[in-house]
Amino acid sequence: MKIISRIGVFGSVTCTGYLLGILTERSKRNASADLNVPRNFPGLPLYGSVSAATPVISNSNPVTVQEISPSSKSRVGQIMKYGFPSLDNVRSLDDYVLAYDKRNRVANWVFEHLTYERVKHNDAVDRSKCQFTEDTSIHDYFRSKNTDYKGSGFDRGHLAAAGNHRVCQKDVDQTFLLSNMAPQVGVGFNRDSWNRLEKHVRRLTRTYPNVYVCTGPLYLPKVEADGKSYVKYQVIGVNHVAVPTHFFKIVVMETSDNKLHMEAYVMPNQKIDDKTPLNVFLVPPESIERASGLLFFDRMSRSNLVQINGRKTTYV
Amino acid sequence: MKIISRIGVFGSVTCTGYLLGILTERSKRNASADLNVPRNFPGLPLYGSVSAATPVISNSNPVTVQEISPSSKSRVGQIMKYGFPSLDNVRSLDDYVLAYDKRNRVANWVFEHLTYERVKHNDAVDRSKCQFTEDTSIHDYFRSKNTDYKGSGFDRGHLAAAGNHRVCQKDVDQTFLLSNMAPQVGVGFNRDSWNRLEKHVRRLTRTYPNVYVCTGPLYLPKVEADGKSYVKYQVIGVNHVAVPTHFFKIVVMETSDNKLHMEAYVMPNQKIDDKTPLNVFLVPPESIERASGLLFFDRMSRSNLVQINGRKTTYV
Repeated sequence: MKIISRIGVFGSVTCTGYLLGILTERSKRNASADLNVPRNFPGLPLYGSVSAATPVISNSNPVTVQEISPSSKSRVGQIMKYGFPSLDNVRSLDDYVLAYDKRNRVANWVFEHLTYERVKHNDAVDRSKCQFTEDTSIHDYFRSKNTDYKGSGFDRGHLAAAGNHRVCQKDVDQTFLLSNMAPQVGVGFNRDSWNRLEKHVRRLTRTYPNVYVCTGPLYLPKVEADGKSYVKYQVIGVNHVAVPTHFFKIVVMETSDNKLHMEAYVMPNQKIDDKTPLNVFLVPPESIERASGLLFFDRMSRSNLVQINGRKTTYV
Repeated sequence: MKIISRIGVFGSVTCTGYLLGILTERSKRNASADLNVPRNFPGLPLYGSVSAATPVISNSNPVTVQEISPSSKSRVGQIMKYGFPSLDNVRSLDDYVLAYDKRNRVANWVFEHLTYERVKHNDAVDRSKCQFTEDTSIHDYFRSKNTDYKGSGFDRGHLAAAGNHRVCQKDVDQTFLLSNMAPQVGVGFNRDSWNRLEKHVRRLTRTYPNVYVCTGPLYLPKVEADGKSYVKYQVIGVNHVAVPTHFFKIVVMETSDNKLHMEAYVMPNQKIDDKTPLNVFLVPPESIERASGLLFFDRMSRSNLVQINGRKTTYV
């Protein structure tokens, strides 16, 4: 069998350091009842793994923390330093990269690269001037429109967060493309807990010189009364824009001594008690890979990945 | 905005010749209640269009009916003569081409090229020797397995039909890869009406020198009691293989005088009365494009497309 385009990464690398306790808490919150994660007994270690695998040896990027100029020309290369999760319908904006799901009319993923300098307050950037705009680079058949959201009860929720793009007005303007939006529950999610998570990711730039974040929707199955598992999600508007059941964020942080830390979150697209600590939503990164059909960070050198979800990986 | 990979085809070309009557019949059968086709009043013409558009002028392949040797080396080029519906996770087998949906663990589409010589009975080919085999080119996270189907109540239904590949045993063997399967209702669908449709497509090779067929799953929304539209489908096995709500086939036939005819079908993945005529399942091709997120035949010269679903196109 010949393989015409990229076929992803074969095999997977196991790294430990993840406790089921987190998953148990998560399932209490019904965050991701069917993330297809093996269910072990509470208290036993759940092995987290990332897809960084076979190609890593030859293709891995050594972690060399660089001063990255906001005006650097190869911005896409910077943002996508650790690899593309998929290759179809990829668009690069000035400060983020997006892959569009034409069937669901929502991005499959968006990728951003954050630094302290890029996300700090900038008087020259005014979010209130931005307008939600159709992405005319998407074929009319597959394009989400403002009218799809109108009266739906859902927010036009940013995937690449507006607050992550403060170098210039154009950068934040581009985050208002509807291809960067997903239907999100407003009160209790987009405006609250999801926003808390976005702020947490921005705050990481105070500790880490470079922060890479991949954000996207999930459509997770649930077991129904008949004992069978079903994926079920609403679609809104005449263009049938999918309302994801959950959203994920995978964050990779480069430390100043050339190590990598990772955090992986899944949040249900529903009203969440704003007092719920964010670490309740931590999940093994590979559970997001299985559920989304994507492989993250396949160009990452796993020997530098020393921490996942706040726990040391054991192969260090 | 830069566009890194192919962004599909902009604009669309309208061609008439399709009557809503067919749609009305189809909706009576609940075949595709939410195909996102504009609902006009019964009896008014429904305009069918295909995605063949801007690039056609420069890239269009003139229809030149060729004697294609079964042993020809550029088989992929032959099969994909009219363009790729999408570009991610594409694999070429010896006699068909497939694009895999890693999230749903079912192909997005398969493409075949049929001729009378290729599909006629061949004593050297024995389907009963074939075995359903895991596709190890798919990452383990996303691969469907025989165990997923076991006890599910669904058939492992071929997308590229076994009976379309009779040149040699290896060709038919390759149709038994699980990446070419989708969970299909057995009695009344896979073994009956869907099989009738496959036979109909094969029979077209008696009339047309070359027949191109693209087959794939659909996950169509339905309006529920709350008035909202939902996509809902079962997933089976530990790998959560999606059970499509419907399947499509789009067929392009080359006539001996260098014209093109097209037929587009959507069938619900459910028990269908075997007496239902196949033309009940005809739909406007663009309704499949909208629902699947794919654009078909973008390298087709629309001026040669003289017939859609048995009706003349009006621009001829």
